Amino acid sequence: MSDNHVVDIFLNPKSVAVIGASKNPMKGGYRIINNLIVNNYKGKIFPVNPNSDGEVFNLKFKKSILEIEEEVDLAIFYVANRIIPEILRDCINKRVKAALIETSGFEEVGEKGLKLRDEILKITDSFSKIRIVGPNCMGLTKIDGDSDSEERGGFFSGFGVFNKYRRGNIAIITQSGMLNGGYLMNLMRNYPDLGIRYSCSIGNKMDLSEIEFLEYFLDDPTVNVIALYLESFKDPRKFIELCKKTKKIPNKTIILLKGGITPLGQKASLSHTGSLAESNQLINAIIKQSGIIQAENLHDLFQYTRTFSMIYKSGKKLPTYGKVSMMAGSGGAGTISADLTMKYGLTFPIMGEKTYQVLKDLYPEWMPPNRFALLDLWPTFEKAMMNNISQKDVMTKIWKAVLDDPKIEGVFNMMFVSKRFSNRYDVEEMTQYKTDKIIFMWMVGDIHGVQRMTKLFNKNNIPTFPSLEEMIKNFSILVQESKSKSKK
Amino acid sequence: MSDNHVVDIFLNPKSVAVIGASKNPMKGGYRIINNLIVNNYKGKIFPVNPNSDGEVFNLKFKKSILEIEEEVDLAIFYVANRIIPEILRDCINKRVKAALIETSGFEEVGEKGLKLRDEILKITDSFSKIRIVGPNCMGLTKIDGDSDSEERGGFFSGFGVFNKYRRGNIAIITQSGMLNGGYLMNLMRNYPDLGIRYSCSIGNKMDLSEIEFLEYFLDDPTVNVIALYLESFKDPRKFIELCKKTKKIPNKTIILLKGGITPLGQKASLSHTGSLAESNQLINAIIKQSGIIQAENLHDLFQYTRTFSMIYKSGKKLPTYGKVSMMAGSGGAGTISADLTMKYGLTFPIMGEKTYQVLKDLYPEWMPPNRFALLDLWPTFEKAMMNNISQKDVMTKIWKAVLDDPKIEGVFNMMFVSKRFSNRYDVEEMTQYKTDKIIFMWMVGDIHGVQRMTKLFNKNNIPTFPSLEEMIKNFSILVQESKSKSKK
Repeated sequence: MSDNHVVDIFLNPKSVAVIGASKNPMKGGYRIINNLIVNNYKGKIFPVNPNSDGEVFNLKFKKSILEIEEEVDLAIFYVANRIIPEILRDCINKRVKAALIETSGFEEVGEKGLKLRDEILKITDSFSKIRIVGPNCMGLTKIDGDSDSEERGGFFSGFGVFNKYRRGNIAIITQSGMLNGGYLMNLMRNYPDLGIRYSCSIGNKMDLSEIEFLEYFLDDPTVNVIALYLESFKDPRKFIELCKKTKKIPNKTIILLKGGITPLGQKASLSHTGSLAESNQLINAIIKQSGIIQAENLHDLFQYTRTFSMIYKSGKKLPTYGKVSMMAGSGGAGTISADLTMKYGLTFPIMGEKTYQVLKDLYPEWMPPNRFALLDLWPTFEKAMMNNISQKDVMTKIWKAVLDDPKIEGVFNMMFVSKRFSNRYDVEEMTQYKTDKIIFMWMVGDIHGVQRMTKLFNKNNIPTFPSLEEMIKNFSILVQESKSKSKK
Repeated sequence: MSDNHVVDIFLNPKSVAVIGASKNPMKGGYRIINNLIVNNYKGKIFPVNPNSDGEVFNLKFKKSILEIEEEVDLAIFYVANRIIPEILRDCINKRVKAALIETSGFEEVGEKGLKLRDEILKITDSFSKIRIVGPNCMGLTKIDGDSDSEERGGFFSGFGVFNKYRRGNIAIITQSGMLNGGYLMNLMRNYPDLGIRYSCSIGNKMDLSEIEFLEYFLDDPTVNVIALYLESFKDPRKFIELCKKTKKIPNKTIILLKGGITPLGQKASLSHTGSLAESNQLINAIIKQSGIIQAENLHDLFQYTRTFSMIYKSGKKLPTYGKVSMMAGSGGAGTISADLTMKYGLTFPIMGEKTYQVLKDLYPEWMPPNRFALLDLWPTFEKAMMNNISQKDVMTKIWKAVLDDPKIEGVFNMMFVSKRFSNRYDVEEMTQYKTDKIIFMWMVGDIHGVQRMTKLFNKNNIPTFPSLEEMIKNFSILVQESKSKSKK
């Protein structure tokens, strides 16, 4: 993270002018100021609106940016598209360093918008006089402290309202405002341990693009996972170069969801961010050469991101070979998980002799354990019941034996959350046992119980999944990343 | 549903003996009796256990089945595997018609179990003297009335405890007890409108198999969707024949999850239900020739089942061409949904002129609607806000115009559930508007709000999905089924 990098002025401005600031709480120009203040932005704020008098949040309105006496690092635009060129001219005269244009109505609306873009190119002398993020975006967010802590806040320059958030190791770069707005807020509310460091909506990428933000986050040691939603590649060669550089950084991973990979998607993308169609061959070549992880949909993008975030936070090593153990309370789940394990290129290895001996004692004679690491725990529960032994102790013994087995890199666990089965799990032991192995939980059962357990495991950086296939797929993604990193 | 069919005696017995009945509530032999009584089984119940005196639920224990004077239709076995042959002999002497063996420890445990099986084959003269379901299963369930209604119950012969359930149009045939146990119970608890008619755990299929149950459900007009989890095919030719027959029944669909489709899965399956490996070619040929829908995992199996269940209940026609409209509040979601729509073989058609004219009035001039049926609603909300028009009215007008468009077979809707956006949706209008088009909802937002809305839509037979891709995939499955049915 370099102070000299162009992105720095957008994420750490010492002063901002909000062009289109408003006193009306229903308007975006109000919410931007509100976001800055409520979230403890430390710099100076200047509301600008020729039609407003008086104050907003005790800040006096300026009629124009030229009325401001102090230096302005960043101008945030939330005004009609047609008046932007004129105000940009003022900004240049005032020597404002950077402009964040949230207004839409440019490349994505066709001819009129393209004309506007050309005008801006001319005024800014191809962005040599002022740098631009946007237009058509939902702002940039930097989180320094959790919303419920004393250090709450950071720099929130979007018009979406953020209430609850946690600082973490994830950086988002997105061409969909939703991912720096409603969708993201809800992810954070639904997964209280999902920590975000940056979330940057880059819109149509008229000037700055994914390239500059990637550069910046690669250099920032507080970022471990970079989630990208792109509708176009601004500079494929540079993009590949940066992704390759990431492979050499042990605790950094990039995950990409590419929108517009089909003709229909490209048609949609044109009217969304004005992105022109890229051939499938080009897209596939970029993804292959860059060696990054591709998500196929929004759900996967965020689930992969969350998984990597937790694994990096836990300090555990990525699994190299994909050797896993599955512990299930059902034979059917065992069979299906075996099929899926193979489908995703993972294996259940033959367990070590020491592990097998521990298991042999706990399984009934009529149903001995497998030699390979697929464990149907049901028979051990039956034996425990018959002999009046605590099922919890049995489960914990198996848990530790499998995690201690040097042949196993990670453990899948099917956890059946219900009142009747709660006596089977020693959650304290399961979350606290010292191990460098990856632990994944498939949560089945009563909604509220699952939510409670999910929080408990997530707090300990143990990822939980609502379905068997998602759990296995996410593990395979860890292995993919580990292999890609070891290649160079 | 024929009274003469062999399955009838298993699902509608006039009297049952519970072999291994117990007074101890921790034991399966107690829970089976409990399930029968609590769920209003109308026939006679005889608890049998040589080691128990007195009564359970006011029913007197018998030492042996031979002590029972009345006729016994069905004997339910929950005793150690080794004593089963002897008791089966008694059952045959007593002319018991059918045996449901829930005990495990047969084909799946290797040599000892195979010996037991051979003994049973001999005693029963290859099942000519008594018919058998199981062994190694979790019982059969028939639901006649919702758990919270006066007609509550039916016939519950498993040892898993069922509390809350709803009668519906789904029949489950499974080689995993979990799917007639904990997993199913939780599905029903988490989706209160998921109605089940039958759930049959068929275990190792020593005698009866999926074939007899399929025959029975094909003839039963109360069943619309049959969900199968199989680890082996008992009679591939007959299976294909029955599936083909289903294609001619307009409101009946079979969905299959096949366990053991990889070598690793087959290894697991052998120790689960004693199923021998089937070659991939055979499995693929069966699925292709049968023309049924294949699910790749448990989650899909139940989601597809739920989707068909709702569509059949709603009385709507299956979509034939896959012509859909997407309504989203985000351009990014629009682009991604366009990609996924193409991936799953669906299309956004060009809308009718009438629809376009309605939309044109509601979209701002700077951002006119697409001609094709992908609608980013955001600009209409902005225009409504600027003109102080109710967003709800705008949304409802669009909703109706699109649903009325003869070129569109179904509508995808991204619903953002949060306090801030709740004023955008007229849920009453959305659920009650008379239409024969398929409506699918992608629910995004606050967990509790989503749960509330999910219930509301599901009650009106409108399926809801937690992710964009699941929504689109499920629609494509409807089209697949419709095409497969029209082939004959």
